[in-house]
Amino acid sequence: MEKITSKTNDRVKYAVKIRDSATFRKNEGLFFLEGARLCADAALSKVEIRQLFVTEAALNKYSEYVRLAEECAERCFVVSAEVAQKLSDTSNSQGVFCLCKMLDKNANIGKIKYNGKYIALEGVSNPSNFGAVVRTAEAVGLDGVIVSGGCDIYNPKSQRAAMGSLFRLNVIEAECLPEFITKVRASGMKVYAGVPAESAKKITEVDMSGGVVFIVGNEGNGITDETCKASTDLVTIPMKGRAESLNAASAAAIIIWEMMR
Amino acid sequence: MEKITSKTNDRVKYAVKIRDSATFRKNEGLFFLEGARLCADAALSKVEIRQLFVTEAALNKYSEYVRLAEECAERCFVVSAEVAQKLSDTSNSQGVFCLCKMLDKNANIGKIKYNGKYIALEGVSNPSNFGAVVRTAEAVGLDGVIVSGGCDIYNPKSQRAAMGSLFRLNVIEAECLPEFITKVRASGMKVYAGVPAESAKKITEVDMSGGVVFIVGNEGNGITDETCKASTDLVTIPMKGRAESLNAASAAAIIIWEMMR
Repeated sequence: MEKITSKTNDRVKYAVKIRDSATFRKNEGLFFLEGARLCADAALSKVEIRQLFVTEAALNKYSEYVRLAEECAERCFVVSAEVAQKLSDTSNSQGVFCLCKMLDKNANIGKIKYNGKYIALEGVSNPSNFGAVVRTAEAVGLDGVIVSGGCDIYNPKSQRAAMGSLFRLNVIEAECLPEFITKVRASGMKVYAGVPAESAKKITEVDMSGGVVFIVGNEGNGITDETCKASTDLVTIPMKGRAESLNAASAAAIIIWEMMR
Repeated sequence: MEKITSKTNDRVKYAVKIRDSATFRKNEGLFFLEGARLCADAALSKVEIRQLFVTEAALNKYSEYVRLAEECAERCFVVSAEVAQKLSDTSNSQGVFCLCKMLDKNANIGKIKYNGKYIALEGVSNPSNFGAVVRTAEAVGLDGVIVSGGCDIYNPKSQRAAMGSLFRLNVIEAECLPEFITKVRASGMKVYAGVPAESAKKITEVDMSGGVVFIVGNEGNGITDETCKASTDLVTIPMKGRAESLNAASAAAIIIWEMMR
């Protein structure tokens, strides 16, 4: 394997730019992953790994994971500890990083199963929240996640929190969510907008049979008016305590669970 | 108000040490909070605010919150932007900080209601996870949270994620969780250990009536054997997808919801 020992190496600078800039990611069609398990998961999910960066220490410590990633990677580089520190976005780096091709599967409304169960995230802006929701969606068994605005799904923090579920789960980007809702409702799906309002229907009292899309809104501002209006019903998780609303990821966990239980 | 303009001022150094060191917090009996709303929530919950630090900008921008905190604070200081940056633990600081006296209410097993609903966190180590669980517990209406090992409840990140619920909810520290379990079971409570095992009972099939303690374990290692053995039953959230297990905060959200629905 080729070695990289300088922090100012062009490949290192390029990888850091992919890591840090959503615009640059989009232009280059690539995204950045960190972590032995996550890079191996990408390989197992047939994500195209263009470049793999590994420290000597990681080659030994995470040999199984690294081997999986290495087999699929177009190019591999052994990097010094100093370079790994430069590449790392975490406080405890494992010294395994890769650049991957963006996924084709993040396609369009054509992929929706009209009798399926989906969660839609409108403007969820915290990448860790976003990733946690996708992880929960896969674990509990939803058919997919619909994303409209909010954080970049290729943000390294989203990817880390999602623990590989973003490679495996059907992720559909809806540019205009109200339009998307109108379309799926016309195909018989029920669309519920999650709101922290006592006047809304209780989540335990709405019909979750058949095709359902449940919308979770932005952490601070909730769901937009247009999206609420386009939905079948406003639905709430009944609260008892003084905490004004649930954290977006916790609310989503309860909603996903309630859709599938 | 007194002014502090130097980052090397002794009060600033002291506050940073309280923020960063669990041991120092314990020795001094104080903890650190950041954020206008959180400092105001502390005041509203009758937490003793010893020192309040505010920037000129925050005095105007968050005047309502700052006034609430100021009324309860023993001493108040206006700090320069440079000092605020030194005090801040976040990327977007609001410029409002305080040092508070630790809560007396984190008391003992005597505070348990034997017909109540509790979540117990054994060794949950991520402060943001921990805080998110406490926030959910308050929102959904649990009677309290039991903490055994894991992260410091006074970690600034725990406090931020909990959004004030740590001031309001009954938080009980159990040094030896198996012993605690034996005691509450003798008083008629059911104690369920949450595990990611298919052989365990399904969460939808266990009796949640009467007094229940539900245990969530460490993010990587789960619940200890001793604690599992002391419990009434091992209980699982049935999974369908490939994600091996849920994030601790998401699992806790589903569990808390299922206890109360």
